[in-house]
Amino acid sequence: MSAPYAAPDDFRTAVLDAGLLVASAVDGVYQLSGEFEDVLQGLQRHLGSQRVDHDAPRRWFPPVLPRAEFLRTDYVASFPDLVGSVDVFRGSDAEHKALLGDLEQGCDWTQHLEPAEIVLSSAGCHSLYATLPAQIPDEASRAEICGFVFRHESGPDPTRLQSFRMYEFVLVGTPEQALGHRDSWMPRALAVLEGLGLRPRVEVAHDPFFGRAGRMLVAGQVEAALKYEFVVDITDATGTAIASANYQQDHFGRTFSLTTGDGQPAHGACMAFGLERTTLALYAAHGLDLAAWPADVRAALGC
Amino acid sequence: MSAPYAAPDDFRTAVLDAGLLVASAVDGVYQLSGEFEDVLQGLQRHLGSQRVDHDAPRRWFPPVLPRAEFLRTDYVASFPDLVGSVDVFRGSDAEHKALLGDLEQGCDWTQHLEPAEIVLSSAGCHSLYATLPAQIPDEASRAEICGFVFRHESGPDPTRLQSFRMYEFVLVGTPEQALGHRDSWMPRALAVLEGLGLRPRVEVAHDPFFGRAGRMLVAGQVEAALKYEFVVDITDATGTAIASANYQQDHFGRTFSLTTGDGQPAHGACMAFGLERTTLALYAAHGLDLAAWPADVRAALGC
Repeated sequence: MSAPYAAPDDFRTAVLDAGLLVASAVDGVYQLSGEFEDVLQGLQRHLGSQRVDHDAPRRWFPPVLPRAEFLRTDYVASFPDLVGSVDVFRGSDAEHKALLGDLEQGCDWTQHLEPAEIVLSSAGCHSLYATLPAQIPDEASRAEICGFVFRHESGPDPTRLQSFRMYEFVLVGTPEQALGHRDSWMPRALAVLEGLGLRPRVEVAHDPFFGRAGRMLVAGQVEAALKYEFVVDITDATGTAIASANYQQDHFGRTFSLTTGDGQPAHGACMAFGLERTTLALYAAHGLDLAAWPADVRAALGC
Repeated sequence: MSAPYAAPDDFRTAVLDAGLLVASAVDGVYQLSGEFEDVLQGLQRHLGSQRVDHDAPRRWFPPVLPRAEFLRTDYVASFPDLVGSVDVFRGSDAEHKALLGDLEQGCDWTQHLEPAEIVLSSAGCHSLYATLPAQIPDEASRAEICGFVFRHESGPDPTRLQSFRMYEFVLVGTPEQALGHRDSWMPRALAVLEGLGLRPRVEVAHDPFFGRAGRMLVAGQVEAALKYEFVVDITDATGTAIASANYQQDHFGRTFSLTTGDGQPAHGACMAFGLERTTLALYAAHGLDLAAWPADVRAALGC
């Protein structure tokens, strides 16, 4: 079966022509139309309505997080090319004058800036760990989270955004609890997406680890089947992952010093949905005219 | 009449204890509870329902915008201390190794980064201008916009966030159209906020221009009454501006080369609501127990 669009460029042209996205001068940075955002917010509420852990705290994260917390995640070691570090100006009137002089002359004005105490958030769950109890309770720690993340990627594919929102169901606990969380969410997530008229296939996947050393991490992650992606065909060129089910083993338990009752580092897992990508997948599947979408899908999204 | 809280610290303690905000290690960076976000999204939909220009395009902006567009706004000249510039890593495996070495030794690892082609958005409308037609039509260009903005501020006051959302009704056109837009929105905004049980006073205000030169800009802005703020009393210590009505004269028309029919630089105006601040003001006014809020307010917000 062929995908709705031949190539990412065709899909891009179609969503731009329909006014759903508005391009900026930078690949991967788009403005969203109000209708697109209505669908996305409806999707976010619909995903929330699928919660099974009704007592899990829900948290919305801003697009930034404390630099010190970010550095505990090891993200800079694994994905340096995706990181967004924030610089700010803390200087005097005189230093400001020098900055403006450099800016006017076309020199690098950012040399007058210093690293901020925050960075751009790279993953929803990064903001969570520092707020969990160091001693994870026997029933595990759960959370339902949402927020903007930044990945320094680019290209003409409108599903590859630099800044986008993730909606996640997270569990931190024993290995059995973490794996159980991931594996119980996979059929549930599939059912939710199928209920919206999407037909994702579930594939063993890997994170885009950087460089030569990264290739070994990729191999290990695939061999252990730690990550599954929910992939839809928007174009014939390549599949688009709109959600993923992840088992992080004890990675964050170790770096954030979270332990379970037996004194071992806690293990983590999450079911994560990409809100912009899933919204784009809905437009690809049902067409760019929202009024013509199946009634049950519109009802589920409240739009 | 005294405010609901004596000092910003009291309000901060109350909203943290109620679990509405979750503090991070950095002042001005909080996680929002799911309930807080529900109220905020209800507020956003309620503000949208107040639109009078039903044909104005609605646009949701990501938290980042192209650096080149940002530099056209002159924000670095006027508010350098609030700017968030983004750095990224574009190096090789070897350079990554050097970066990690510096990180491990506690040296400045960010010296291995370079300025990105994007920066954090400082104001909602900055993203808009580059997408407007250079020749503004006779009926003016209008837009309804929303997005996260970053301001590098800090302090214990939970209404002073580094990252927050603005909802704005913008017009770009002739001076008369711009002033008319601002002045017709002021009573309308007051009615909307009063309808939610808030009692803002409207004050001539100014932007926080930087440094010595900034003091003159402040004086000029106040004298010309370009900016009005809608201020509520959350604490006895200081008023909190939750919305503002702004006339930017031809500032953005000049820097983005937008002209009206007579060949003159276009003038701009906007009515802007701070979504997190207004939500906090609602909690201060109606109490931290959402279930006890007036029924009509909950109905308006759909929560």
